Amino acid sequence: MTSIASAADARSAIEAANRTFMNAFGRGDAVTLAGLYSATAQLLPAHSDFVAGSMAIRHFWQGVMELGVTRALLETLEIETQGDIACETGRYTLRAGEEIADVGKYLVLWKRDGAAWKLHRDIWTTSRPVA
Amino acid sequence: MTSIASAADARSAIEAANRTFMNAFGRGDAVTLAGLYSATAQLLPAHSDFVAGSMAIRHFWQGVMELGVTRALLETLEIETQGDIACETGRYTLRAGEEIADVGKYLVLWKRDGAAWKLHRDIWTTSRPVA
Repeated sequence: MTSIASAADARSAIEAANRTFMNAFGRGDAVTLAGLYSATAQLLPAHSDFVAGSMAIRHFWQGVMELGVTRALLETLEIETQGDIACETGRYTLRAGEEIADVGKYLVLWKRDGAAWKLHRDIWTTSRPVA
Repeated sequence: MTSIASAADARSAIEAANRTFMNAFGRGDAVTLAGLYSATAQLLPAHSDFVAGSMAIRHFWQGVMELGVTRALLETLEIETQGDIACETGRYTLRAGEEIADVGKYLVLWKRDGAAWKLHRDIWTTSRPVA
């Protein structure tokens, strides 16, 4: 029962962090977004090397917002968790005002940091055909 | 000590599976590649929806080989593991004969399946600039 309870705790903490992510993105708050990541987190974006650490992650998301993306919608499909790590599979939609800027899927490695769960590795791919 | 030993076991099983992956890729053996994935595995490739299940995964890698990719080189950077799950971060290089066809990075969720570790979620992004 303990491990089932922990898994449920992990899932609700991760879902809450994703809501914070979406809300922060919607108001253009890259500082809050970066704060959801671990101190040694990495993004693995396409057409880029690893983006490592809080400041680089903050600048990355700031840059996405400056390209005109106004909303990031995250839909968790599945979370595998054991102990202090969790791996989430999901779908995303990026909006630029009324337009859909991109749709795709993602994998996030989360790590427990005290009571909080933090994004530790974050990678996503567009599901759109090659332009 | 048990968890340290299990982590080392997970790491060596995953590194062995990656060597099998590279060898199978090098001889064009998509059947062996697909066998390294769990029964409910998913690829998350760019410009595609999820690729789910052994047959679809086999066809995906067969298609990559038919595009002229002759070698896939995997370099593990880091493995986070607890219990029956492990999350690997790494770099890849795809070769087409003497040419480098692509370089990038990946995140793989591995799951223990008895004594074996199987790829369960597999996602990668090119590190090359937009063409």
